[in-house]
Amino acid sequence: MYPFKGDEDYPRDQWYVAGWQNEIGRSLKARTILGEPIVLYRTAEGLPVAMNARCPHRGFPLSRGDLIGDAIQCGYHGFTFGASGQCIRIPSQAEIPKNYRSRTYPVAERWHFLWIWMGNGDLADPNLIPDPMSDIVDHANWCVTVGGVEELKGRYQLLHDNLLDLSHITFLHADTIGSPRVAATPVSIETLHDRIIANRLVEGEHLEHSGLGKAMSIKGPVDRKQSQQFFPPSLHTTGAEFVSSSRGGVDPGRSFGTLRVFHGVTPCTPTTTHYFWGFARNFAAADQAINENVRQVIMNTIAQDKAGIEAVEAMLSNYGNPSREISAKVDRVAMQGRRYVQDQIRAERRPRMA
Amino acid sequence: MYPFKGDEDYPRDQWYVAGWQNEIGRSLKARTILGEPIVLYRTAEGLPVAMNARCPHRGFPLSRGDLIGDAIQCGYHGFTFGASGQCIRIPSQAEIPKNYRSRTYPVAERWHFLWIWMGNGDLADPNLIPDPMSDIVDHANWCVTVGGVEELKGRYQLLHDNLLDLSHITFLHADTIGSPRVAATPVSIETLHDRIIANRLVEGEHLEHSGLGKAMSIKGPVDRKQSQQFFPPSLHTTGAEFVSSSRGGVDPGRSFGTLRVFHGVTPCTPTTTHYFWGFARNFAAADQAINENVRQVIMNTIAQDKAGIEAVEAMLSNYGNPSREISAKVDRVAMQGRRYVQDQIRAERRPRMA
Amino acid sequence: MYPFKGDEDYPRDQWYVAGWQNEIGRSLKARTILGEPIVLYRTAEGLPVAMNARCPHRGFPLSRGDLIGDAIQCGYHGFTFGASGQCIRIPSQAEIPKNYRSRTYPVAERWHFLWIWMGNGDLADPNLIPDPMSDIVDHANWCVTVGGVEELKGRYQLLHDNLLDLSHITFLHADTIGSPRVAATPVSIETLHDRIIANRLVEGEHLEHSGLGKAMSIKGPVDRKQSQQFFPPSLHTTGAEFVSSSRGGVDPGRSFGTLRVFHGVTPCTPTTTHYFWGFARNFAAADQAINENVRQVIMNTIAQDKAGIEAVEAMLSNYGNPSREISAKVDRVAMQGRRYVQDQIRAERRPRMA
Ligand code: FES
Ligand code: FES
Ligand code: FES
Repeated sequence: MYPFKGDEDYPRDQWYVAGWQNEIGRSLKARTILGEPIVLYRTAEGLPVAMNARCPHRGFPLSRGDLIGDAIQCGYHGFTFGASGQCIRIPSQAEIPKNYRSRTYPVAERWHFLWIWMGNGDLADPNLIPDPMSDIVDHANWCVTVGGVEELKGRYQLLHDNLLDLSHITFLHADTIGSPRVAATPVSIETLHDRIIANRLVEGEHLEHSGLGKAMSIKGPVDRKQSQQFFPPSLHTTGAEFVSSSRGGVDPGRSFGTLRVFHGVTPCTPTTTHYFWGFARNFAAADQAINENVRQVIMNTIAQDKAGIEAVEAMLSNYGNPSREISAKVDRVAMQGRRYVQDQIRAERRPRMA
Repeated sequence: MYPFKGDEDYPRDQWYVAGWQNEIGRSLKARTILGEPIVLYRTAEGLPVAMNARCPHRGFPLSRGDLIGDAIQCGYHGFTFGASGQCIRIPSQAEIPKNYRSRTYPVAERWHFLWIWMGNGDLADPNLIPDPMSDIVDHANWCVTVGGVEELKGRYQLLHDNLLDLSHITFLHADTIGSPRVAATPVSIETLHDRIIANRLVEGEHLEHSGLGKAMSIKGPVDRKQSQQFFPPSLHTTGAEFVSSSRGGVDPGRSFGTLRVFHGVTPCTPTTTHYFWGFARNFAAADQAINENVRQVIMNTIAQDKAGIEAVEAMLSNYGNPSREISAKVDRVAMQGRRYVQDQIRAERRPRMA
Repeated sequence: MYPFKGDEDYPRDQWYVAGWQNEIGRSLKARTILGEPIVLYRTAEGLPVAMNARCPHRGFPLSRGDLIGDAIQCGYHGFTFGASGQCIRIPSQAEIPKNYRSRTYPVAERWHFLWIWMGNGDLADPNLIPDPMSDIVDHANWCVTVGGVEELKGRYQLLHDNLLDLSHITFLHADTIGSPRVAATPVSIETLHDRIIANRLVEGEHLEHSGLGKAMSIKGPVDRKQSQQFFPPSLHTTGAEFVSSSRGGVDPGRSFGTLRVFHGVTPCTPTTTHYFWGFARNFAAADQAINENVRQVIMNTIAQDKAGIEAVEAMLSNYGNPSREISAKVDRVAMQGRRYVQDQIRAERRPRMA
């Protein structure tokens, strides 16, 4: 489906964010992931569990059952499924066939997220999970803040397209994090086997009166050293260091700090997406008030992205796929991103060697 | 469609409940039955009429017209159709072709219900209409109370599945009519040519503090003699006699009374259902206050069934049909019920002998 | 689709009302026309522009962008399209390929309406636009009042059917503009190459107590000289002169005035319609209070038509197409109207001669 030429939907043999770690606890949480109904919880020991939420008996949602010890008791006829998915109780009979089970999915906790593997479990290697802070050397200076999750009424690729063409900052985010110069600044792109890196150096911006500039106490013209990483198909980082400009800046070369935003992109249904977002910063880590200011700017920005993506999805659902699409040079990054994801889908469809 | 393997929807050459007798009077009532728009009313003489509600002129709903005498005058251009469905007036001309008519359906009044035959009218024999009280000898002791009609956002077979596996009482109805013992008690099953009968003897239950127990003034442990009948595809009775238990009961063997609930199951659209329910009891027939108590318990119970069935239907519509389904021995009754209904559908599809 | 036998939807090589002239100005107005997203505005000079509203870059709705001079700047990444549809700015690069453009549509302003041509632009001859007042000789006596636009949840052909069978006035509009006599009065029909004309002479009506009669200060019995024109596929006029009846009228032969209602019928999606309505009258042109009275009567009437058409559309969407349809002699006008529109659609599908 769009933007792919064929019927590609989403890669399955990949790690996706199933939730923030702190969302999942000793109660049953329902979430649709890659079109499947999932119920998430933790055992008494604290281990995370992801189980298919359709009761294999008569299809009642297990997420509406009861967590009894480490097992889920279905709310309809009481069939009970342990953390492995195996049925451990049928109220009306003693014997329980071995194949009475609900599917469970590999999960792993990494970097504030609970990750899930929806495809072939044999391939679920936790080492493949990306770490959005792996390139940070001095973690001590950094403050990490978990944001939230937005439910987008739009296909996940529209969010990738959005994040990979940051020229939109100038327009869609004119009054939050934007400035006229961003779109006009050339972008450099580097493609690694597992990620795409893109950078911009936006020189001499005036951000004093923007929400972002105020939250970061920016004074005078600054250079925005924008950098982003895409770990296809599920995670992005975007962000920038703001440095006092050599052209007329207050104390040229002084850094006002670096901000990094995390974007977990998890397909919900073919046309809806879970959008997990959080951020980290390396300035004033002890100042809790700044968290709220930065969070407010990012929330407003994300609300604009959500509205923009949903407007594009509405065009697709109301008027069908576009007959053609024009692109600019700046779109190389997003086109590259599409290619990575499409290749992941196609690789799954090829027969595997023995 | 699910739960049938093929494309079976519903049997048509069968009597279905179109309404409670007291719902149908001298005004036009619209109801969708087996996917067709029906308008129901009574003639001045009191005879019930069921007519296709799509005006054969330009498709305006006749149910929004006016009942003039025994005829319906369409609210758009005034074409008028008598109780036989024949067009009897065209405002703009005198002649009325004989074949200008709306389809009418055989109807019959039996046991508080208005029944309708949606299929081949030649086969509509009122003797086929089931009587849910036919096995009661001493009618004098019984008090019958008409309940209501719920509109389920779920396919009718989910309601049959629900009613034919009463082990769900322990879980879905834990706080209304349930008790832990019901699900654990074996069920016996008897299949006749026109019905399925199933029974349970649930021994030594404590119901004093349940809504049901209070409504029936139950004291001490009781045996629940549960019995149910399914007249496929349209009517169920469920119910039980509550008898003071031989194991520690107050006055062992004394009956606290029998309660019988009626369930008229009428497909509305392929995925929605009209659920007509009422009840009868053989105790304290003169005590009107008990009606309200029992009705409240049953209404709460039915609200739980509605929520449960709609949750299953939502799983089907959101996630498609299940790839497989596991069943327990207790499911024999419901599986038998599915088979009866599926056979009715298949029989209609076979060419009839001349 | 219904009422056509085949898959015909709507003629495209035709002029349709895109809006009232006074709706379109120096802001961006979104409107779906014949299933396509259109954005409407005026240049600084006042010339109307109709552009496809899907941004050819990544599909954001141009109607949510900014009008900058005579061009639209997309709200997502700032690509900018001039009034001709040509892309005139890409913020991230200097060169703009010639074929970067959004489609624009021929438009023309005639008789209070902005007209649009959605099909092959080479055929868009403004001389083909119908003028609903062309047969009026003495324009000085007439007062024209722009009404409004209703969004109908019904396919456009149901509105044509409605307008071309005015026998519905007696029933659907019994309490607004109707009277018992209209439906019973024969209609005469005249078919020209570009229009259908139909007339009725309804004699001796009593309208004193109707909303219409009061708004027109009608006294005593009148003859309603009903006349209508259909310019397929997009415009109707309906109306009547009310003349004091020769049978008992006050001052027989005296005219209480003529009222003419305009109906612009523009398909929105295959099952929804923009319904533009306005009216003109030749009495008391200077009396502004009468405008409001007449407008109120017409608004109520149109609300009834809307409800009626939406009820028919709901029957089609809930129950599918009718298996058959009966018609009366009075339906000749509407059947003729269907034929004109169907012929327009079919003509477009025939290969054109070189
Ligand atoms: S549906 Fe879950 S136990 Fe029956
Ligand atoms: S639609 Fe019923 S009379 Fe015309
Ligand atoms: S979608 Fe319009 S400029 Fe990108």
